[in-house]
Amino acid sequence: MGFPVARKLIDSHLVSGEPVPGREIGLRVDQTLTQDATGTLVMQELEALGLDRARTEVSVQYVDHNLLQADEKNAEDHAFLRSACRRFGMWFSKPGNGVSHPTHMARFGVPGRTMVGSDSHTCAAGSLGMLAIGVGGLEVAMAIAGEPLYLRMPEIWGVRLTGALPEWVSAKDVILEMLRRHGVKGGLNRIVEYHGPGLASLSAMDRHVIANMGAELGATTTVFPADDAVLEFLRAQDRASDFEELVADPDAVYDVAEEIDLSALEPLIACPSSPDNVVPVRDVAGTEVRQVVIGSSANPGLRDFAVAAAMVRGRQTHDAVSFDVNPTSREILADLTKMGATLDLVSAGARLHQAGCLGCIGMGQAPAAGHNSLRTFPRNFPGRSGTREDRVWLCSPETATAAALTGVITDPRELSMGYPSVVLPERATVNTAMLVPPLPPERAAREELVKGPNISALPDFPPLPDDIEAVVLLKVGDNISTDEISPAGAAALPFRSNIPKLADFTFTRVDATYPSRAREAEGGHFVVGGDNYGQGSSREHAAITPRHLGLHAVIAKSFARIHWQNLANFGILALEFTDPADYDRVEQGHVLALRDLRSQLTEGEELTATDTTTGVDIPLRHRLSPRQVEAVLEGGRIPLLARR
Amino acid sequence: MGFPVARKLIDSHLVSGEPVPGREIGLRVDQTLTQDATGTLVMQELEALGLDRARTEVSVQYVDHNLLQADEKNAEDHAFLRSACRRFGMWFSKPGNGVSHPTHMARFGVPGRTMVGSDSHTCAAGSLGMLAIGVGGLEVAMAIAGEPLYLRMPEIWGVRLTGALPEWVSAKDVILEMLRRHGVKGGLNRIVEYHGPGLASLSAMDRHVIANMGAELGATTTVFPADDAVLEFLRAQDRASDFEELVADPDAVYDVAEEIDLSALEPLIACPSSPDNVVPVRDVAGTEVRQVVIGSSANPGLRDFAVAAAMVRGRQTHDAVSFDVNPTSREILADLTKMGATLDLVSAGARLHQAGCLGCIGMGQAPAAGHNSLRTFPRNFPGRSGTREDRVWLCSPETATAAALTGVITDPRELSMGYPSVVLPERATVNTAMLVPPLPPERAAREELVKGPNISALPDFPPLPDDIEAVVLLKVGDNISTDEISPAGAAALPFRSNIPKLADFTFTRVDATYPSRAREAEGGHFVVGGDNYGQGSSREHAAITPRHLGLHAVIAKSFARIHWQNLANFGILALEFTDPADYDRVEQGHVLALRDLRSQLTEGEELTATDTTTGVDIPLRHRLSPRQVEAVLEGGRIPLLARR
Repeated sequence: MGFPVARKLIDSHLVSGEPVPGREIGLRVDQTLTQDATGTLVMQELEALGLDRARTEVSVQYVDHNLLQADEKNAEDHAFLRSACRRFGMWFSKPGNGVSHPTHMARFGVPGRTMVGSDSHTCAAGSLGMLAIGVGGLEVAMAIAGEPLYLRMPEIWGVRLTGALPEWVSAKDVILEMLRRHGVKGGLNRIVEYHGPGLASLSAMDRHVIANMGAELGATTTVFPADDAVLEFLRAQDRASDFEELVADPDAVYDVAEEIDLSALEPLIACPSSPDNVVPVRDVAGTEVRQVVIGSSANPGLRDFAVAAAMVRGRQTHDAVSFDVNPTSREILADLTKMGATLDLVSAGARLHQAGCLGCIGMGQAPAAGHNSLRTFPRNFPGRSGTREDRVWLCSPETATAAALTGVITDPRELSMGYPSVVLPERATVNTAMLVPPLPPERAAREELVKGPNISALPDFPPLPDDIEAVVLLKVGDNISTDEISPAGAAALPFRSNIPKLADFTFTRVDATYPSRAREAEGGHFVVGGDNYGQGSSREHAAITPRHLGLHAVIAKSFARIHWQNLANFGILALEFTDPADYDRVEQGHVLALRDLRSQLTEGEELTATDTTTGVDIPLRHRLSPRQVEAVLEGGRIPLLARR
Repeated sequence: MGFPVARKLIDSHLVSGEPVPGREIGLRVDQTLTQDATGTLVMQELEALGLDRARTEVSVQYVDHNLLQADEKNAEDHAFLRSACRRFGMWFSKPGNGVSHPTHMARFGVPGRTMVGSDSHTCAAGSLGMLAIGVGGLEVAMAIAGEPLYLRMPEIWGVRLTGALPEWVSAKDVILEMLRRHGVKGGLNRIVEYHGPGLASLSAMDRHVIANMGAELGATTTVFPADDAVLEFLRAQDRASDFEELVADPDAVYDVAEEIDLSALEPLIACPSSPDNVVPVRDVAGTEVRQVVIGSSANPGLRDFAVAAAMVRGRQTHDAVSFDVNPTSREILADLTKMGATLDLVSAGARLHQAGCLGCIGMGQAPAAGHNSLRTFPRNFPGRSGTREDRVWLCSPETATAAALTGVITDPRELSMGYPSVVLPERATVNTAMLVPPLPPERAAREELVKGPNISALPDFPPLPDDIEAVVLLKVGDNISTDEISPAGAAALPFRSNIPKLADFTFTRVDATYPSRAREAEGGHFVVGGDNYGQGSSREHAAITPRHLGLHAVIAKSFARIHWQNLANFGILALEFTDPADYDRVEQGHVLALRDLRSQLTEGEELTATDTTTGVDIPLRHRLSPRQVEAVLEGGRIPLLARR
């Protein structure tokens, strides 16, 4: 019985446990990736851990999120991150160098390696045959410190690709098809591994598009083989020597099997406001559009911009449309410029922005309320754009550009033009000058952390009480995202290193009164959730800020993986209803009691809460490993480490 | 006796009064310019005036200020402005098309014409031999409605230029030299007119640099002749047919005379935090720099970017410096790209931003507190960058780029490179697709204004009471700028169409308690100021928001022109101390009484206030014309018009 690529990656990095689905395993981590919105906290954690120097092969800190700099806080964080990289022996990718995922792929990605990143789209590196997993910042800090990554062994979901994509259909439509079929929790506790003859027509960057938005399926990660397409990519980046073939055995067995005939796909679009709200573009054609944005880690490749440029060459975008182009990196901007594509885009009316995430994480580019915005981004959760009543749609560059030209949603196959043939340069521009390498150890040891006034200390996390009687302060529905728990955006993100201040934004998109009610609720509180609680971004602020406001436990039907881990890391109980029907029996305002927690948690996975308002007992389940139980009881992993 | 250019422009547009310095004159207005930060209010005023269609030759609404779009408000304002242009028969320059002043110069500027603009740097159009004056939004609205512009006839200040600029010295150093000599109020009540043999070596765009920052001298405007340099510029823009020669008579007489030998200038820099805090660059060389920004209407020309690109070609900017490049317009970005300069800049580490004002008005790019930022911008008032404790320096592109390369303030003559010879294309890129022309009248009449929820109605402005007894709520020093009265920046600007909300920001950079104290002070209040009160930006919000909070009168040693006019327009008395020494006798917290205002104001320029705290009478002076007195008594020009 042969092995899939994912299993080979796990076996070669296994340091504890058995790779049986559901069992906790420990993996050696070769690389880490942090971005600035989550990275400041990681650096504060490294400082709290007393780390001397990063112990990974490669650890890179990117600055791609907070680039607007509406006041001094962003620039001060950049200075802090730069100093922390100098202190801890890490790479520093300067503001303006580019979006972490594609930049990492181009400069650092190596087939066969493992990586954790404090960004949910870290999985994009699966495009090169890496096992790359988005996790909370504390997991990354531990990995930088040389600790293994612990996770429950996922199932491996083999998706066999056949055929080849038709004209006007591209990689984005493949992942939109997966989302159409399986929804935002279809990938929970699974690694998606693509294989089959259809792979031959997908470049490594096409695979990045698909791997990136594996996050939207809720998958642990996505894996592609390291084959000729990967070699071709690395060769174009002057890194052919980093290539090592890693492919599935011919008789590889997958836990779950799926097939997609690429030749049968058509242009797809995710309607507002969930990435799995997918329909064929033709079903919504004619809808008025006021903004189109090209860019983000979900369509980062040179090709994605070049195809848009070829479509608008010699044409003008529609009078009522703002056509925003966010280059992925300055290397890609250089390539686009050499190809003439920058000129084509600007001449056709593009607003060409600095290289970075920008509108994808609500850093500017917010549309007017109720005005349709088509984006090549990975997510369209409500309000993530920065606009409360937003109407954001997700699609391919081809579909987005078609709308920029016509002013309405348009199936690009209906345009009166041939499908542009885009010829990319064989060698990409390689310019590493904005990637500052680690200092040598003796020099690094002398560096001081540069802390602006907005970098506050982490708050205290007291141990979990043995008995908790507290109110259900908030009850929410299914698929609550971390954007809804702790919003990003230009107003909140600057405070991401200042927990007491950031806490004022907690849950405000769902219930503006939550922070004040939480502060008033003596003895803390509970939150009740539906399915897939905590999907989306990996930001651990979505655990830390409600914890700071007194959250003891979230009781939900099910949890998204990264947030579940973050809750445990920061001493919040993540409890599942044994009977999902009990969700309907617990109302906001009820008072629940959890007794004898130390013994309940250590004795097994089952425990019981009492709804003191109704007098009913509610059977619950935790899925924490003994390692995690110990941390939760102590108030989280940081107090646990501090005690040691 | 011959006439200067300024006098010829005035004579050809005079509709009332005599052009004698100090007397009120009325001028016919040919063109208007509005930008989005002030334009929404202008459009609300046009609506309040019941205007059917613009009566000027050319009226253009630019969107260059609020481009970050941190939430829905910016995009909704853009939609409102677009609809207003369609309704009132105006040109609409889309977001991303470029900064108003250089874009207007390239596409619409015509020698011999007059223009008013709701932006203090409107004077930049003087580079083409126009009489272009920055005024409050209401003056622009009146001009669009066909009314004359009323102002006191300024003195004409002839500045004779001789010689030619040495290598590494450019137009910015000329205006910095003027600021070094005369300070931020050296130009009050004057038109600066440049003439003499030195003009021959200054291109029209060089003259734009000098004319633009005439605003920083406090001048009414700046005028250059329309000569061969202007013809050359217009020819490059495919508009040679718009050229008309307009030069001073050989025996022209100026009210004030000055001379600058260009060949004697050296690189200059304005230190934090005033544009007139000017020293030679060599005096501050070696100071550590963390940010360099190229762009803004103060150095907007293709040459300004091309010289920076030539300096960094094949080099890398300093590791610790953020090198931000803000293209002026997409036409200039297209030219830079064709020349290869875009690639040079990006390759050297530039963060290439969208075309617009951006950091110049605190829309992003805020530096870290205490970190030096060198900018080619026109202003460095404290906090204007968005950072409270900012350290912003103003200089030429040559000096700024030198610092980007070395990481410290550097006299560019000390670099080990030859002065780059920059060859500009004979024909500029002309691309008018993002300039939407006026609709034909019959179609315009059917257009509806698109108002988002953030466009509130203007508040009511009651008539001036005949007797006022009120407290001096705030006493400030000299050179208080409108940035300090009503800050711009990413936090405040989105509310510029929402006066009650914007009022919460009034004076907060000077005294955070002002808005709340003002709201509590029954019967209104006074503000006492020093010299040059209200310098800087033309924003009329600096009159409207304190008025909304109960301000009756500002009593100061002297006023900056545009703000003085805005105060009168919105029914606030601008009163000068007859004896400047009285400034020291009136303290914050004193209660002043103004009696029988109707008769005091109409009987002459003298009036008296009583300081009831000390019992002392304070002689004051107003300089209002009878036209303005009528408006102030009525509560401002809007209530006056409403009554009619």
